[in-house]
Amino acid sequence: MKIAIDGMGGDNAPKAVIEGVIKALEEYKGIEYYITGPKEQIEEELKNYNYDKTLVNIIDAREIISPNEHPVMALKKKKDSSIYKALKLVKDKECDAVISGGSTGAFLAGCTLVVGRIKGIERPALAPIMPGKNGSFMIVDAGANVDSKPNYLVQFAKMGKVYYQGVIGKENPSVGLVNIGAEEEKGNELTKATYKLLKEENNLNFVGNVEPRDTSKGDVNVLVCDGFVGNTLLKMYEGVASTLLSMIKDEILSGSIISKLGAGLLSPVFKSLKVKFDYKEYGGAPFLGVDGICIKAHGSSDGKAFKNAIRQTKIFYDNGVLEKIKAELKNNI
Amino acid sequence: MKIAIDGMGGDNAPKAVIEGVIKALEEYKGIEYYITGPKEQIEEELKNYNYDKTLVNIIDAREIISPNEHPVMALKKKKDSSIYKALKLVKDKECDAVISGGSTGAFLAGCTLVVGRIKGIERPALAPIMPGKNGSFMIVDAGANVDSKPNYLVQFAKMGKVYYQGVIGKENPSVGLVNIGAEEEKGNELTKATYKLLKEENNLNFVGNVEPRDTSKGDVNVLVCDGFVGNTLLKMYEGVASTLLSMIKDEILSGSIISKLGAGLLSPVFKSLKVKFDYKEYGGAPFLGVDGICIKAHGSSDGKAFKNAIRQTKIFYDNGVLEKIKAELKNNI
Repeated sequence: MKIAIDGMGGDNAPKAVIEGVIKALEEYKGIEYYITGPKEQIEEELKNYNYDKTLVNIIDAREIISPNEHPVMALKKKKDSSIYKALKLVKDKECDAVISGGSTGAFLAGCTLVVGRIKGIERPALAPIMPGKNGSFMIVDAGANVDSKPNYLVQFAKMGKVYYQGVIGKENPSVGLVNIGAEEEKGNELTKATYKLLKEENNLNFVGNVEPRDTSKGDVNVLVCDGFVGNTLLKMYEGVASTLLSMIKDEILSGSIISKLGAGLLSPVFKSLKVKFDYKEYGGAPFLGVDGICIKAHGSSDGKAFKNAIRQTKIFYDNGVLEKIKAELKNNI
Repeated sequence: MKIAIDGMGGDNAPKAVIEGVIKALEEYKGIEYYITGPKEQIEEELKNYNYDKTLVNIIDAREIISPNEHPVMALKKKKDSSIYKALKLVKDKECDAVISGGSTGAFLAGCTLVVGRIKGIERPALAPIMPGKNGSFMIVDAGANVDSKPNYLVQFAKMGKVYYQGVIGKENPSVGLVNIGAEEEKGNELTKATYKLLKEENNLNFVGNVEPRDTSKGDVNVLVCDGFVGNTLLKMYEGVASTLLSMIKDEILSGSIISKLGAGLLSPVFKSLKVKFDYKEYGGAPFLGVDGICIKAHGSSDGKAFKNAIRQTKIFYDNGVLEKIKAELKNNI
């Protein structure tokens, strides 16, 4: 397969991007890479490695879109940006997939404007997979759409199910509706109307409402919600975990020598926990509903995270998940 | 002052309620208590303590409203319930305040139906104070209202400001709008419209949008949002913290003897952290906008939490916060 990768996307680009590509070249076979960005800068990074040069192409792109720019304006103006050129490769069928760690707004807008929606999909949705206590869980939508309508959420559920099944490999994953109460009649207008629609869907393993406090347990595989709520879940998850861990650290540092010794002895525990909680293990978030394999890597991705985003992209492609999403939705539109 | 307290409200009632009252009798002067519930059951609990009997009255109430009942229906039917009778004491001006650890739905519905709204208030809001890394913060609304309109949120901001100022004692507290982006134009229809209104308010120390990941830092004092979002924040906060701590525990228990030794040495750190993160320190959540001092204690409150809810109620009363809320809103309705 051919993957287009935004060489300048992310806080640690292009270094981390190139590192990820090199690691992936070692681990996965049959992938050709198209890295977009200023040619000499990409070449400079690549110089540090030995790799099969026939598998890596550089697509020169002189402009960069920063996260502070207006996404749609920036995309329309900067046709020579690394992000636009990567998307264009998928649009023109020169590549099978695109990965970017750049501006989320510009990437999502670009996926819709450049790559385009699947016919019949109302709104594409960002769908990161998160580590939970008892298993991973997926949030659809995690921030691409606000003021959603009930039928958008039904489509999110269907796309999420197919993706989770195809990429995580769990047959008939459970689907829950994020709501501030367990009973059917709880919630706001959107959740009440969506609940009614979801329970009518025979092909979904719909398990009802999931309260926010239970989401991080990971007992329900696919969590469906409006993007405002999904983004809140995602950011609270990251925010509370990091606040709590930094409070533990502060307490230890301001504590006695005994506490410091204790922390030393516990360090394998914290490390193992860090791996469990590490979103980098999961690579990136697919943007479901666009007519191409589009993966948003976290802005703070390191080489390992980019490598994992590539792994995820490969599974997406190998298992024909895009076609399966189209088939699933076709029956229901 | 006179406080009505729902003797049967909460998972550990009436034991924890009575324990809280006894502790409060020892610590705070000038409070008379009216405890509602089955007379003999309350008396039985009180028997375990020595206390000034002239300060404790039992108001017999034979019915109990469970969290699973439909709030409004239950309230209308069960006029002899501990929760209804406690509210009625405030309505009839026999008490100055009411505290309940019972069904949130029934208590909030009762506050509105029995005690009544302040004239001009569109929607009363539940406003818990949470422990953050750098200070406490308040969420208004934490779940009483869904599908809010922009002007509700402006009233939440004003009530939250007066309460935070009057009870926490911070002059001109900062007020933020919970939103999934920092810039003014980010978010959904509600946040965009609310932002415009809040920045026009000269008497508010409005600091703009606060992203969910930053809420738990506690850098902004009063966080304004729709109740669906606020409830999500609150429950994610509790949920992620408890998931993370239980994961640390699991890791330690499944780890080596060295990890267990480390955990033993670190136990003062975890204890100190537990105190910092303990919502029980803050007592209960005021229901702002009703024409009385109405405090919702956490369902899992122990004696200490009820005692702290009483402390908070006393400050609310002593500092004339209810009158200040009315004055603040009068100028702006």
